[in-house]
Amino acid sequence: MPKKLEVLYENKPCYNIIIENNFEKLVENIIEISPNTDRKVCIFTDDLVGSHYEKEVRERLREKFNLVITYTIPNGENSKTLSNVEKLYEELIKNHFDRRDLLIALGGGVVGDMTGFAAATYLRGIDFIQVPTSLLSQVDSSIGGKTGVDYLQYKNMVGAFYMPKLVYINTATLNTLSDAQLASGMGEVVKHGLIRNEAYYAWMETHSAGVLARDPQVMEELIYESCKIKKAVVEEDPKEQGIRAYLNFGHTLGHAIERLSNFQLFHGQCVSLGMACASYISWKRGYISEADYTHVLAVLETFHLPTKLSLPIAPQDVVSVSKSDKKMVGKRVKFVLLHGIGNAAIDMDVSDEEMLEALATLSE
Amino acid sequence: MPKKLEVLYENKPCYNIIIENNFEKLVENIIEISPNTDRKVCIFTDDLVGSHYEKEVRERLREKFNLVITYTIPNGENSKTLSNVEKLYEELIKNHFDRRDLLIALGGGVVGDMTGFAAATYLRGIDFIQVPTSLLSQVDSSIGGKTGVDYLQYKNMVGAFYMPKLVYINTATLNTLSDAQLASGMGEVVKHGLIRNEAYYAWMETHSAGVLARDPQVMEELIYESCKIKKAVVEEDPKEQGIRAYLNFGHTLGHAIERLSNFQLFHGQCVSLGMACASYISWKRGYISEADYTHVLAVLETFHLPTKLSLPIAPQDVVSVSKSDKKMVGKRVKFVLLHGIGNAAIDMDVSDEEMLEALATLSE
Repeated sequence: MPKKLEVLYENKPCYNIIIENNFEKLVENIIEISPNTDRKVCIFTDDLVGSHYEKEVRERLREKFNLVITYTIPNGENSKTLSNVEKLYEELIKNHFDRRDLLIALGGGVVGDMTGFAAATYLRGIDFIQVPTSLLSQVDSSIGGKTGVDYLQYKNMVGAFYMPKLVYINTATLNTLSDAQLASGMGEVVKHGLIRNEAYYAWMETHSAGVLARDPQVMEELIYESCKIKKAVVEEDPKEQGIRAYLNFGHTLGHAIERLSNFQLFHGQCVSLGMACASYISWKRGYISEADYTHVLAVLETFHLPTKLSLPIAPQDVVSVSKSDKKMVGKRVKFVLLHGIGNAAIDMDVSDEEMLEALATLSE
Repeated sequence: MPKKLEVLYENKPCYNIIIENNFEKLVENIIEISPNTDRKVCIFTDDLVGSHYEKEVRERLREKFNLVITYTIPNGENSKTLSNVEKLYEELIKNHFDRRDLLIALGGGVVGDMTGFAAATYLRGIDFIQVPTSLLSQVDSSIGGKTGVDYLQYKNMVGAFYMPKLVYINTATLNTLSDAQLASGMGEVVKHGLIRNEAYYAWMETHSAGVLARDPQVMEELIYESCKIKKAVVEEDPKEQGIRAYLNFGHTLGHAIERLSNFQLFHGQCVSLGMACASYISWKRGYISEADYTHVLAVLETFHLPTKLSLPIAPQDVVSVSKSDKKMVGKRVKFVLLHGIGNAAIDMDVSDEEMLEALATLSE
């Protein structure tokens, strides 16, 4: 059963999330946004995702659109640079793309964030569409209009809030994900349950076998419910001035670990470690029970997410790096803790000692 | 008499334009937006403007704000590059600027556009304030949220729509402008009258002696009325989907001349030449009278704006370059013509022959 969600922006309908198990309806959904088939289309993808899906997507688009080009970058976080966005600008200029034309992000979070940023800034803004192909991007990064690139060693340092015109999820693309990438996506899925919806958190544990086997029905339901949570949060707080920060649960220490690992660990794996720490602090402060805490660890492990750090990273370094993170407000770290399962809250007074104690559990 | 205008964005109050004849009220107007004096402030300026005003502005800010830094670029259009914006990012990172901090554009259009783009994209958006110091930026580029940089040989190819929190105009800064820069600003002022307000157009001609002598009262009135026109247009059409395009009167051919002159001519001078051509086409099509047309030329000349091209640029090249301009829609040039003085309209069917005939008048 195809599913559809409408995302509002400032209380007005802004774009749809379509969940299908193939690419058949992609073109008709694009034409529904604008019937103009004279517009030029540029598919932005990476070499890995492109090798699986670019040809089919391009051929489907070419049935309706006159000019469809593809720009491909190497797979991976190292490609997420301003200079790669500049190369895309040059490709668009060379092909005379103007304000009416269209970019399509075919790939995971890196491709989606970069395409969105290029769309936000080329000629002060052109349309773009998200076609997320990883679990992580399907449930998280493709929704909500956060776009950007890394700068120096900082993640998403340069970016913009800029909404897509459509998010088209083909769940069949999950079949080409590695187990590690699937697990990485599950990091954000578990997070959604923990911060916002206890019933969903319970449901995913019950359906863990189906998730791990990538059962199409289970995955569709999993993605749909996760998109609903993400949609609700970004609708309420599109510019991250309040509750959208809940989505950073596990990210304060997780991002620092990710940087210190030199991106050897997947994002979701780092978020898992960060969630383990944040849950530990939540337990130690008496916001959740010990049973809740150990259950969080068990659920993470069920989905093959780490709760122990496999790399030699010093806790003190993690704390230092997290304090240089852009989510700092003044000199204080913005921490998200659990006040019960399914219920997040922001805390500005988590001490270095609490962080160090929590980080120590990762190597016990 | 200080003057104030409130600019709406999507029908909600967004920022004020303050017109003063000194910098005394700058800090109190900033604090009115946010009482947080803990925020870090970065003044972005160029070496020429900075030599006149940076010290005073910095010292005034330092009375209230703890950390005030200045980042200076060389004066001129050649500085308007992405790599200079990157250098600003690095300065902000080095000084630990976060989402609550503030950029101030102290300078003309180049500085304002770049500061706005940096503010739009640093950490997905931080606050910025326009302190325009040229007539051109005071009446035009500081208002309406168009930000950007040039890319390759294209003006404003990379940019964003991003609103300032305040536009603070100190009319005394006009005293350090060269005559050519003052004339350049008058290009946009005359344009405002021509596209939107015949009475203002008549008023500026009556007060031309005061304008040329930079009489403070006359300049304040001139700027205020021009800001009112710009404000009204951008409020009605913030993203240039309709009538905001009227502001491109004189710009289709003007931009092409500007590029072909390698920026030896000032922007307003090129717009003047473009307006002369567009007025000529408007006359030839019977939209304005011959008397109106020759009067437009006389008014431009009154303000020391060119109606003849002083450089050896071939009309055919101007047409070719204007057709590669990003304001193209599909393959047609979007031209703004006058349907009477004070009344602009968009025309999509101006022919190459009409353009060539109009351009020929520039070298007669």
